[in-house]
Amino acid sequence: MSTQINQVEALLHTLQDGLCAELVRMDGKACFVEDVWSRPAGGGGCTRVLRDGGVFEQAGVSFSCVTGEQLPPSATVDRSELAGHGFVATGLSLVLHPENPYIPAAHANVRYFEVCRENAEPVWWFGGGFDLTPFYPFDEDVVHWHTVARDLCAPFGVTVYPRYKKRCDDYFYLKHRSEARGVGGLFYDDLNEGGFARCLAFTRSVGQGFLDAYVPIVERRRHISWGERERQFQLYRRGRYVEFNLVYDRGTLFGLQSGGRTESILMSLPPQVRFEYAYQIQPGSPEARLASYLKARDWV
Amino acid sequence: MSTQINQVEALLHTLQDGLCAELVRMDGKACFVEDVWSRPAGGGGCTRVLRDGGVFEQAGVSFSCVTGEQLPPSATVDRSELAGHGFVATGLSLVLHPENPYIPAAHANVRYFEVCRENAEPVWWFGGGFDLTPFYPFDEDVVHWHTVARDLCAPFGVTVYPRYKKRCDDYFYLKHRSEARGVGGLFYDDLNEGGFARCLAFTRSVGQGFLDAYVPIVERRRHISWGERERQFQLYRRGRYVEFNLVYDRGTLFGLQSGGRTESILMSLPPQVRFEYAYQIQPGSPEARLASYLKARDWV
Repeated sequence: MSTQINQVEALLHTLQDGLCAELVRMDGKACFVEDVWSRPAGGGGCTRVLRDGGVFEQAGVSFSCVTGEQLPPSATVDRSELAGHGFVATGLSLVLHPENPYIPAAHANVRYFEVCRENAEPVWWFGGGFDLTPFYPFDEDVVHWHTVARDLCAPFGVTVYPRYKKRCDDYFYLKHRSEARGVGGLFYDDLNEGGFARCLAFTRSVGQGFLDAYVPIVERRRHISWGERERQFQLYRRGRYVEFNLVYDRGTLFGLQSGGRTESILMSLPPQVRFEYAYQIQPGSPEARLASYLKARDWV
Repeated sequence: MSTQINQVEALLHTLQDGLCAELVRMDGKACFVEDVWSRPAGGGGCTRVLRDGGVFEQAGVSFSCVTGEQLPPSATVDRSELAGHGFVATGLSLVLHPENPYIPAAHANVRYFEVCRENAEPVWWFGGGFDLTPFYPFDEDVVHWHTVARDLCAPFGVTVYPRYKKRCDDYFYLKHRSEARGVGGLFYDDLNEGGFARCLAFTRSVGQGFLDAYVPIVERRRHISWGERERQFQLYRRGRYVEFNLVYDRGTLFGLQSGGRTESILMSLPPQVRFEYAYQIQPGSPEARLASYLKARDWV
């Protein structure tokens, strides 16, 4: 283990504690249950899940650090020559499924890979980001979300936000639906430019910035009353979340391919879901508004 | 279009009508709604879905015939040299999600591919099979299911059932859960041995045999009363069905990759589903019985 991985792990643990504390405060009812696990093939993790809360139907914040003999192809797009080498991967994933359909679902992830090669320096890179999945979107919320994203990127260069915003739009896209998963945010991968310290600092900013982006949205929407109609729409739209995570998400596929802990990987799936053949949305209805948000757009 | 494809299409239409008629009879309450669709890139289909029935929460029987310029890799395991060539693919898929948790979910599929190559005879093959996914299994049902499967294979050779039974066990397996999707049945692919007429006859036997296998099970279990406990277990187990279809199922991936009609492909997903982190089954409970059925076993 390098000192680099120790620094990343320390950051991820700090982030996990900070995120969980704030989520519990916001939720006001339930708390996290923690599972500490180890992986027979090497490594382990700590998965925290809060259920049936005052705000969150389910909230999961999972830390993992796994080692392996063979890097799976899903781990890297830009560095396919590294597939098959020994690796260490550590990451923190957060997935929030609020009960109130007026509060968007949210996801954040930060991760770090180190690949060991014989007679050569290890190759390392960071990845991460956060994205928002509303059911009944509010412009004000989406603009706020992207403003926080832009502002946290600013110290790292003016091109950072537009590049990572676009990568997020490209990544969280359901090709078979011609539809984005949500309204985007930030997504980066294969990041090692500018040295380790800078990349670590950027990753810290993303992890901490998530709460600045999400908490005000929850506070604004948590008291909107909702009924069966909104619930049914939310359950239906959660189906898209399942489709994305199981068909496209590289983190999910990496986890399943690398023999990760299935329960921790799939805690991203919403607790209740509905699939409906040939679902029809009434034109002009509140539900019909969502479609126009699921196309990439400049928000700030 | 070859005369072969015309013969297959005729069979599939006959099977679709026969299957739907019998399902409606069994259901006794709802009927099928039909969508006839065409695909911009070539071909089309006819999707029939029955919902909120007396027996079936959802039943889908979908015919499709699609043409394409480039065979996707998911279309064939044994003939990877054909990937990228022009093709015609036609198939019939049936997915049944009964409401009563004591009635197993069931799936059947038959399909035919023809790949066109310049200056060479077309290459063709059949695929298909059926498999059963119980929640509260009964030995009697599983033995019956496999007995019908064995008997319909018998005229085609004594090795057919054991080979296709094993392929079914191998195929419907969730590696990340170390668990079968259900209790298996038959699965074949890349079949062209013995000539077209024999392969077509076998495919007819599989399509027709499905009802012999499934109807008696429905009739035996449809009047068992059930409550919230069984429903919750069924919804949870349906999550595994979603995991399999979106992560592993080649037909689903082929459809999504080849620009198929998404609604028709994903009508296989159960209408309501529950995902639960770290779900615990009480040892010795009726729900705990299922696990031992989700390992490959000889049933006849």
